[in-house]
Amino acid sequence: MTNSTLRATLACAVFLAAPATAFANDLLEEAKDYFAPIPSVVPAVKNNAVTSDKINLGKMLFFDPRLSSSALISCNTCHNLGMGGDDNLETSIGHGWQKGPRNAPTVLNAVFNVAQFWDGRAEDLKAQAKGPVQAGVEMASTPARVEETLNSMPAYVEAFGKAFPGEDKPVTFDNMAKAIEAFEATLITPYSRFDQFLEGNTSVLNEEEQAGLQLFMDTGCASCHSGVNLGGEDYYPFGVVEKPGADILPASDKGRFAVTQTADEEYVFRAGPLRNIELTAPYFHSGKVWDLEQAVAIMSSSQLGEELTDDQIKKITAFLKTLTGEQPKVEYPILPVETAETPKPEAMIAK
Amino acid sequence: MTNSTLRATLACAVFLAAPATAFANDLLEEAKDYFAPIPSVVPAVKNNAVTSDKINLGKMLFFDPRLSSSALISCNTCHNLGMGGDDNLETSIGHGWQKGPRNAPTVLNAVFNVAQFWDGRAEDLKAQAKGPVQAGVEMASTPARVEETLNSMPAYVEAFGKAFPGEDKPVTFDNMAKAIEAFEATLITPYSRFDQFLEGNTSVLNEEEQAGLQLFMDTGCASCHSGVNLGGEDYYPFGVVEKPGADILPASDKGRFAVTQTADEEYVFRAGPLRNIELTAPYFHSGKVWDLEQAVAIMSSSQLGEELTDDQIKKITAFLKTLTGEQPKVEYPILPVETAETPKPEAMIAK
Repeated sequence: MTNSTLRATLACAVFLAAPATAFANDLLEEAKDYFAPIPSVVPAVKNNAVTSDKINLGKMLFFDPRLSSSALISCNTCHNLGMGGDDNLETSIGHGWQKGPRNAPTVLNAVFNVAQFWDGRAEDLKAQAKGPVQAGVEMASTPARVEETLNSMPAYVEAFGKAFPGEDKPVTFDNMAKAIEAFEATLITPYSRFDQFLEGNTSVLNEEEQAGLQLFMDTGCASCHSGVNLGGEDYYPFGVVEKPGADILPASDKGRFAVTQTADEEYVFRAGPLRNIELTAPYFHSGKVWDLEQAVAIMSSSQLGEELTDDQIKKITAFLKTLTGEQPKVEYPILPVETAETPKPEAMIAK
Repeated sequence: MTNSTLRATLACAVFLAAPATAFANDLLEEAKDYFAPIPSVVPAVKNNAVTSDKINLGKMLFFDPRLSSSALISCNTCHNLGMGGDDNLETSIGHGWQKGPRNAPTVLNAVFNVAQFWDGRAEDLKAQAKGPVQAGVEMASTPARVEETLNSMPAYVEAFGKAFPGEDKPVTFDNMAKAIEAFEATLITPYSRFDQFLEGNTSVLNEEEQAGLQLFMDTGCASCHSGVNLGGEDYYPFGVVEKPGADILPASDKGRFAVTQTADEEYVFRAGPLRNIELTAPYFHSGKVWDLEQAVAIMSSSQLGEELTDDQIKKITAFLKTLTGEQPKVEYPILPVETAETPKPEAMIAK
């Protein structure tokens, strides 16, 4: 190649690249109006200073099956940190092999949600953490049993003392929840390709993914699925335009209505946060849909009243797969050993 | 203190210390005839080169609940690496909340046992690993389902290719077991205080613990509980002198008899390995005894025909607590994401 041919080729390449770059830059500017990247540092949490002692304690509690009365089920059982922060089941299996009512939401990036659970009935992660521990179909324990369990192990008593300095009786059910919240605040997944795009590195998304992002905003997905978590920020009726089938939206689960008792909140749910969505099938509160493209199609018809083409669905799905971030690196905790005072497991009771 | 007083005091201290040191040195020499320290490097495994690729794959498999048909139960469920490598239940809870027949043995240092399971029916860890995966009361899967599951996920196919280079079809049930064995070979707990003692640092055991070690050898415990694991090396009748009660030794579980069909192997079990015994209550194959002192008392009457005094039991128990080693540091693995080809969980089937 002569120098002049090279120059001509380069000029041509620049000319050809120009529209793509311009498109990407416009796309980035538009995207910034809807979305925000995951911060690379642990976010602050309301009324709960996130200290390293609290995080360490919270990690032990998160993995400790003795928070359940069976001594078999830990937070990590249903919010598996190796599997996108959920259990990849339709609905969770809990105490006595009972089936839970809804699909387990991921714990990853949950700190960015406006409230917790599908119906937002817990205002934050410390309120959330108390739910499954007590739910009969989940961990089936009680605050008294949990406190007795934790107080029976000197290593836990010491860890609570460090995590909650200056408190007279630090080993409480409330503090258990606060420590778990502190640990969960660390479970964020930054550096997804979409985050890199939002930070200005537009070339990290390919043409199909960029087209998918454009469609995600143009068709209206981003009206509900926005913010840091692309969802998790507000509540919307499932089936705002057209109700999906009863397998996907069972009539008996009226969503946020059970929380607010407000008629117009029947079948209202918190918009699902879409971070790491590729890792958290099956989808929806009923957990009936395993295929992400199918989930996108259902959303578009039920929420937007729009039948997307297969090509559009593929592009949006390709975009959604750019939301997979760096998964948390967690050293598996060594848990305190039980003592004669530790309540014995109730796992032996058949259900 | 004057120089001469200091000299006199030192001379006196040396004089007083001498018998203790001499005792410790004699004790050490005697102990070396029975026991060996845990090596600080990963031990070799028969017919299975322990490579880092195999260890990494094995770790994923060990923590992956999708080896069970419910997609809820992993190896770590019953062999919890944060809890001494077992589940601290009488007997394990498995598929459909079924109760297993025997107490889950610890996976820690299991590589040093002569064979696996309470009755030694698996000759090594790769043979062992295939058992619970298929057992109906445990993970309730099949080799075909496991292979289909693993083959459905490209990241697993790649990991098997690396772990078993040169093999045409590396994703097999057998290779799953080999990878798990390789990971489990890393689950050793060196540097217990007893190991330090065996390495010559006799002062690391206090007087009571040294007396306990002496009793452990003198009364005959060490006849069965010897070697690296202080047990796990051979088979003995439970109740060689006097059978314990039916709650502790249920008549229906005839131990090694089921393996060998030899009449004199009725109620014969592998001597329990005692490493980390402080962490692995409840004790015995029936898991009925939570208290270590009580377990020592039962052993002494049933196996040695000797009623130890409370003081002797306390001393032996104090010694046994020096067997707790450094617990494995394991980064929780990020597991491959399922695909459309991955068999769906059967967890929803009520039992």
